[in-house]
Amino acid sequence: MADDKKKMWGGRFAQGTDASVEAFTASIDFDKALYLEDIAGSMAHAAMLARQGVITADEAEAIRGGLEKVRAEIEAGEMVWHAGLEDVHMHVERRLTELIGSPGGKLHTGRSRNDQVALDFRLHVTRRLGEWAELLAGLAGTLTARAEGHQDVLLPGHTHLQPAQPVSLAHHLLAYAWMFRRDHERVGDCLRRVMVSPLGAAALAGTTHDLDPASVAGDLGLSGVFANSMDAVSDRDFAIEALSCAAMIMMHLSRLCEELIIWANPRFGWVRLPDAYATGSSIMPQKKNPDVAELVRGKTGRVYGDLTALLTLMKGLPLAYNRDMQEDKEPFFDADATVRSCLALTRDMMAAMGFDASAMCAALQQGFLNATELADYLAAKGLPFREAHHAAGSAVALAEEKGCGLEDLSLGELKSFSELVEDDVFQALTPEAAVARRRTSGGTGPQSVSEQIRSMRQWLEQMGGE
Amino acid sequence: MADDKKKMWGGRFAQGTDASVEAFTASIDFDKALYLEDIAGSMAHAAMLARQGVITADEAEAIRGGLEKVRAEIEAGEMVWHAGLEDVHMHVERRLTELIGSPGGKLHTGRSRNDQVALDFRLHVTRRLGEWAELLAGLAGTLTARAEGHQDVLLPGHTHLQPAQPVSLAHHLLAYAWMFRRDHERVGDCLRRVMVSPLGAAALAGTTHDLDPASVAGDLGLSGVFANSMDAVSDRDFAIEALSCAAMIMMHLSRLCEELIIWANPRFGWVRLPDAYATGSSIMPQKKNPDVAELVRGKTGRVYGDLTALLTLMKGLPLAYNRDMQEDKEPFFDADATVRSCLALTRDMMAAMGFDASAMCAALQQGFLNATELADYLAAKGLPFREAHHAAGSAVALAEEKGCGLEDLSLGELKSFSELVEDDVFQALTPEAAVARRRTSGGTGPQSVSEQIRSMRQWLEQMGGE
Amino acid sequence: MADDKKKMWGGRFAQGTDASVEAFTASIDFDKALYLEDIAGSMAHAAMLARQGVITADEAEAIRGGLEKVRAEIEAGEMVWHAGLEDVHMHVERRLTELIGSPGGKLHTGRSRNDQVALDFRLHVTRRLGEWAELLAGLAGTLTARAEGHQDVLLPGHTHLQPAQPVSLAHHLLAYAWMFRRDHERVGDCLRRVMVSPLGAAALAGTTHDLDPASVAGDLGLSGVFANSMDAVSDRDFAIEALSCAAMIMMHLSRLCEELIIWANPRFGWVRLPDAYATGSSIMPQKKNPDVAELVRGKTGRVYGDLTALLTLMKGLPLAYNRDMQEDKEPFFDADATVRSCLALTRDMMAAMGFDASAMCAALQQGFLNATELADYLAAKGLPFREAHHAAGSAVALAEEKGCGLEDLSLGELKSFSELVEDDVFQALTPEAAVARRRTSGGTGPQSVSEQIRSMRQWLEQMGGE
Amino acid sequence: MADDKKKMWGGRFAQGTDASVEAFTASIDFDKALYLEDIAGSMAHAAMLARQGVITADEAEAIRGGLEKVRAEIEAGEMVWHAGLEDVHMHVERRLTELIGSPGGKLHTGRSRNDQVALDFRLHVTRRLGEWAELLAGLAGTLTARAEGHQDVLLPGHTHLQPAQPVSLAHHLLAYAWMFRRDHERVGDCLRRVMVSPLGAAALAGTTHDLDPASVAGDLGLSGVFANSMDAVSDRDFAIEALSCAAMIMMHLSRLCEELIIWANPRFGWVRLPDAYATGSSIMPQKKNPDVAELVRGKTGRVYGDLTALLTLMKGLPLAYNRDMQEDKEPFFDADATVRSCLALTRDMMAAMGFDASAMCAALQQGFLNATELADYLAAKGLPFREAHHAAGSAVALAEEKGCGLEDLSLGELKSFSELVEDDVFQALTPEAAVARRRTSGGTGPQSVSEQIRSMRQWLEQMGGE
Repeated sequence: MADDKKKMWGGRFAQGTDASVEAFTASIDFDKALYLEDIAGSMAHAAMLARQGVITADEAEAIRGGLEKVRAEIEAGEMVWHAGLEDVHMHVERRLTELIGSPGGKLHTGRSRNDQVALDFRLHVTRRLGEWAELLAGLAGTLTARAEGHQDVLLPGHTHLQPAQPVSLAHHLLAYAWMFRRDHERVGDCLRRVMVSPLGAAALAGTTHDLDPASVAGDLGLSGVFANSMDAVSDRDFAIEALSCAAMIMMHLSRLCEELIIWANPRFGWVRLPDAYATGSSIMPQKKNPDVAELVRGKTGRVYGDLTALLTLMKGLPLAYNRDMQEDKEPFFDADATVRSCLALTRDMMAAMGFDASAMCAALQQGFLNATELADYLAAKGLPFREAHHAAGSAVALAEEKGCGLEDLSLGELKSFSELVEDDVFQALTPEAAVARRRTSGGTGPQSVSEQIRSMRQWLEQMGGE
Repeated sequence: MADDKKKMWGGRFAQGTDASVEAFTASIDFDKALYLEDIAGSMAHAAMLARQGVITADEAEAIRGGLEKVRAEIEAGEMVWHAGLEDVHMHVERRLTELIGSPGGKLHTGRSRNDQVALDFRLHVTRRLGEWAELLAGLAGTLTARAEGHQDVLLPGHTHLQPAQPVSLAHHLLAYAWMFRRDHERVGDCLRRVMVSPLGAAALAGTTHDLDPASVAGDLGLSGVFANSMDAVSDRDFAIEALSCAAMIMMHLSRLCEELIIWANPRFGWVRLPDAYATGSSIMPQKKNPDVAELVRGKTGRVYGDLTALLTLMKGLPLAYNRDMQEDKEPFFDADATVRSCLALTRDMMAAMGFDASAMCAALQQGFLNATELADYLAAKGLPFREAHHAAGSAVALAEEKGCGLEDLSLGELKSFSELVEDDVFQALTPEAAVARRRTSGGTGPQSVSEQIRSMRQWLEQMGGE
Repeated sequence: MADDKKKMWGGRFAQGTDASVEAFTASIDFDKALYLEDIAGSMAHAAMLARQGVITADEAEAIRGGLEKVRAEIEAGEMVWHAGLEDVHMHVERRLTELIGSPGGKLHTGRSRNDQVALDFRLHVTRRLGEWAELLAGLAGTLTARAEGHQDVLLPGHTHLQPAQPVSLAHHLLAYAWMFRRDHERVGDCLRRVMVSPLGAAALAGTTHDLDPASVAGDLGLSGVFANSMDAVSDRDFAIEALSCAAMIMMHLSRLCEELIIWANPRFGWVRLPDAYATGSSIMPQKKNPDVAELVRGKTGRVYGDLTALLTLMKGLPLAYNRDMQEDKEPFFDADATVRSCLALTRDMMAAMGFDASAMCAALQQGFLNATELADYLAAKGLPFREAHHAAGSAVALAEEKGCGLEDLSLGELKSFSELVEDDVFQALTPEAAVARRRTSGGTGPQSVSEQIRSMRQWLEQMGGE
Repeated sequence: MADDKKKMWGGRFAQGTDASVEAFTASIDFDKALYLEDIAGSMAHAAMLARQGVITADEAEAIRGGLEKVRAEIEAGEMVWHAGLEDVHMHVERRLTELIGSPGGKLHTGRSRNDQVALDFRLHVTRRLGEWAELLAGLAGTLTARAEGHQDVLLPGHTHLQPAQPVSLAHHLLAYAWMFRRDHERVGDCLRRVMVSPLGAAALAGTTHDLDPASVAGDLGLSGVFANSMDAVSDRDFAIEALSCAAMIMMHLSRLCEELIIWANPRFGWVRLPDAYATGSSIMPQKKNPDVAELVRGKTGRVYGDLTALLTLMKGLPLAYNRDMQEDKEPFFDADATVRSCLALTRDMMAAMGFDASAMCAALQQGFLNATELADYLAAKGLPFREAHHAAGSAVALAEEKGCGLEDLSLGELKSFSELVEDDVFQALTPEAAVARRRTSGGTGPQSVSEQIRSMRQWLEQMGGE
């Protein structure tokens, strides 16, 4: 049983808190991760209190020095955390007061744990989202670099996981780079709403002291300040929006990893997993498994789950703060750790990935990837596209029956589907021609790919990445 | 069994599609909702084809005229929809060709259903998100108007659904207005990513024709154009992001509705539901139920479900288009209809809602809402806040025992907790004083509330709302 | 504006319902799907009322006849549904009263819409879950039949989508049959909790009439009757549990379909999609896409979403009935339609699926599927398994370098990894030997597969399936 | 960089695993929670190997002794866990081999980590679900005990959170007891599918050794054995089903807690939170917040999220084992810890909860809870129910206008709505009469409540609870 005399709120309580309740309601197990932000927030608050004349400059200085000491103690592993002190805020303030005496007691002037925790959490999410942005740019940069080196490698592009049309490996890799660039933009938009200081909202109604919330926000590097105190202490939109971004990032990663897993299968053999990014089997000696890609794909589930958790949490909660909201942090912490490790591992894995250009090339012979070219060839010669499509489909049926490619049919055979076929058809049916012809902006043609790489490089430079 | 000769892709198929398969795979039941966007997209595509010299001006004009006729037929209910024609694109094109003959067959030049459906869907989401934004501004406007009329009405502000501190009804209502304003901003950010044209990506690899995708985007009022064709045909981020916005909106609505439901209970009695927004019971003659608020709260579930559906859908899908993606539209349609009706109904209900100021006022006498004032009073007289808090807590314990409010204790009784108490304590304990003292920006004090209303009005004007 | 005089509950209302509110709160658009159950429930209720002497036998007979007429009218499409009459219950009762006069007014004696709708919904879920069970048995039966015909076909079994060990196609197909059999068992467990009658709970507190709820339950083929009226009208566990079963079924189907999609890719080529279960492309003439499998996989999302919707809906709802609960039906209807169509289509598609045994056989040559056999061979000759595993791994490395299979290494080469290798090693390395040796119960060996087929046949017979 | 020589599968790998990959892929951080089950499973496996003659009795005995030593070391905190050894299985086996030498190397004969981890996890879930069942019975028992002591306490029963009809507090509490009893039944059904041994499935295809899987299952107290090895190693249905049960339990708890939170608000004042189950505020001295109830309600979100995570995880995974599945354990661990603590805390809180019967009684005077009684009274005198309903509704309107209850209207006033009203009406309008008249089985009447308590007691005795 904890010493309830330690509690901030014991006045009207006759009976102490049950130990199991204390353990159940305490958040210190996970919110100690916010100690940096809690201390930074308290320093800014104390400095402002002094500027406003609520405390003296000496008191503010004592608080600042004390808080630095507390931070050092925490980082040295000397802080004794226990459930009886509930949360990181109480631990820091208690220790501060032990260290510096009565000025410590004035630190909480004009604020409540309701606005304090909201501030700490916002500062933490701000920091983490900055890291996400950096990792996203890093992954886009890696993909761009790999694309740059593989502009001439062609492989079957798929729809419905069926061979569709030849594309360049660079184009394929860049498709993912654009996804992560969009994620980066979304994270940036989200950050604008995260970086709003709630300090000064106090318990729910604002404070009676003559505080200056805007200057605290500025000192902490935040870009805005709350407009309504009841909203400020109960707004968790920023965390939900961050988790929405996280879910999207994981969805994109799951798609990339799905492809790597399929490409690593020997029937494809389009990638050679670096040993460092694969593991084996305790039973099957030949195994080299794409575990990293599988785990990244699997971890998508937990991030979707984190988002579900937070949306469910907030449903139907009346104003203002409710204790349910204490459950806001763990889903974010879990998603954050997941997103950061998955982005970093995927970046490193993609940097080290071996691509088997000859296996990709061989695969171009299969699946009639040039059937569209035949149809386009006929259409260009004047056949209405729907008829050209039908002629090409019939040619495919013949080639399939003969077990060969369209390009292996004789001129006569091809002519049997349309008199418009001429000698030049065979040139048109090569994958290189197919790719080269798709020269419009955004297509798989070389100019488009170069332009994408240029645009991506320029953006990366602006981002300070790569 | 449908006539497979009608199918665009019958060439290599020996056997027709099974009727049950046709019914299962057809999307016409729901994607006909996109007919407006499909026709607009085709018109812009045809105009561009003519500008680029791919078709003649006459052909383009024939197509435009034909498409207008098709639209008129659809709106007159004359189009016969059937599963054999799969989707809205085939219906429109088939009918166009019936009407204008061979130029109709050229409309599909340089595009595929993969980029076509992505365009249609983006145009549709663009339109709907514009409506959301308008409805959000409308609801924020109504809340602001109601706040304006209730600046002097005080009620207990709650945390943990326990009386916490007095707040003004205006401040309480504005807390929601700020939520919906944030939603509005999020919808705006989302729109920037929705309004990107994928047309020209064709099946997945871009087109071999000399098209001008940017001009089509411009004609359609979109602000951007795709950068990578494989990404373009398989990107559904915009729909997921829209559903994330929708989930947040519903979460906010569920919180407001939860409060209305609690306030409508006669133990509270703080709102009088307008008859027009309540329903009764077939059994219990006295019932007047807050059905609209309950349904809005309940519908939160379906929108969360729609978001889950789409995130799940996209998990692990390889590039580029996969048929799974056909399942993207219904969750959006469902969430869109839900969000629009819930926003509109809540706006109208809030406009008509009766607030019972005297019931709110009476409630201020219960729950020791002025305990913080007593602590602040003592702190202002020099008692360290933690001691002042304890003294006030003890005063609450006494008052609770006596079954009265703090303001009903005698001066002597109050002095017994601290010698600092003086005559002026009773003035400090009134709710009016408590609210008035919270004058910092964002607090519940009158100046802050006026400032919020002013800011909200200004923003609404910019939005063209209200 | 609807005619509020028609409303059952107008007594205390001065003002009519707003038309938009009426449209928003009415459930008739979707709950008319319950008309059969509503009428069946009312017939059973009326019969019981007569048995208990609450109404006369003549009145009960008039009600029964009238309800049959209403049902016939609905089935003939003659019922005019409109939002002003709110729901299916009001439509049926109103029409009944029009048809038979005052006895119709007595039908509602001792019940409320709260218990009535719970009964209707339970009857509906009962019926649908019966159909699910039948479809699950049907699919398991089809898989068993296909397994029976493919006991000798071997293919690479995968873990991590990497070739692992040879298995028989029959064993692979049966793995899914067991999943669907488990689903069948789960549906059966769920049904025990669905088939409980809530009729007699009335609005929430039970009824003042001398009713006999158990006999109504019996007449309706339900197996139990409610124990607590407040629970009875607000319990939606049965629907959530049904959706949990549905989510699991879809998860299983998504796994099967993922495999079909991969196997249909020409790099694998292990299945030949029947034309009737594939579709083509409007652009690429060669395409034959596994659309049905893709859509089934994609529809997993919507069923997960339906489950999320219902769980969210019920979170935090106080006793007893709340209007939110009206939102319980659509997620079930959606999931039910999805589950039924996906099970039926998958069953038919699996029945028609072509398996390419020679492509599977060819694939056995790749990926060192017999590496475990080599390790086991060495272990059987006395080498500790961990050492045997290492030796086999080294042999794989050599074969990979030489671009051949383990069985293509010379005896000398194999001996270089362990002196225990002898002539008989080559026999041990054949896929047939590998499969045959896994003869323990549940393994891929022929006896085990035969035993699985026998067990499945026996169960199917008990289920009355296939 | 870890020492890859320690890895079980290093044979074909030229390069070591990257340290970041090792940390990312290792599961030891969380799967060490399975050490008890891993050791129990290994003991049973070794005993069976000896019975089957695969290893000697002495070897089996050495293994058993060694494993006991390993367990003791783990429990003494002497095991050094590190990511390089991947998982709990490797840690245990490595330490065993260090302790007993070569027999340790034989333990893995005939099994793989794929079936081993599935076994461990099933044993763990079995144990935990047993605890859930006990806690569910305990909570139902506590609710029954509290109901027993409050059969005569009446309070307003609500629908739509509006006063509906008087009910007894016992009936209200029992409604929840029945929910938890249903949860108990569901957990029992789930357990039947959890308690199936996968051991002997080996990697995916079964084992080549002559094992006896059924006897291992028996020794471990499991009730069944796998039927298909590919299914066995990739089946996670049991964990999903367990999480579905958990989600339902949390949903029920969230409903109970919502009511406690509302009832603890002073406008209701129907419960007095025990000090031990409430906490205060650092700012507001009067606060006594229902934190435990709020946290339980909030934790619903994380369990829904855990279910979402696992369903998402398994979507679209091909046979057989995939590394994604490693992500199956943490969602279960999280949900398990949540469910157990929430059930235990809620049980203790309900045992200690103070109910304020007089506040409940006072509330019965408000909200026209006897309006149904008036309608029933008139109906019993022969007025058709619909007309009686309308008359009662009009009486409510008059009473509302006069600011009194129906029972406060004069006989003349009541007669003005129907001539059938007589003197005895006032007796019929008392809450006691209303409750007493609901005497049918399952209603709120005293006999029904007694019968519920009797039934619940009998069941609890069978369960060995309370």
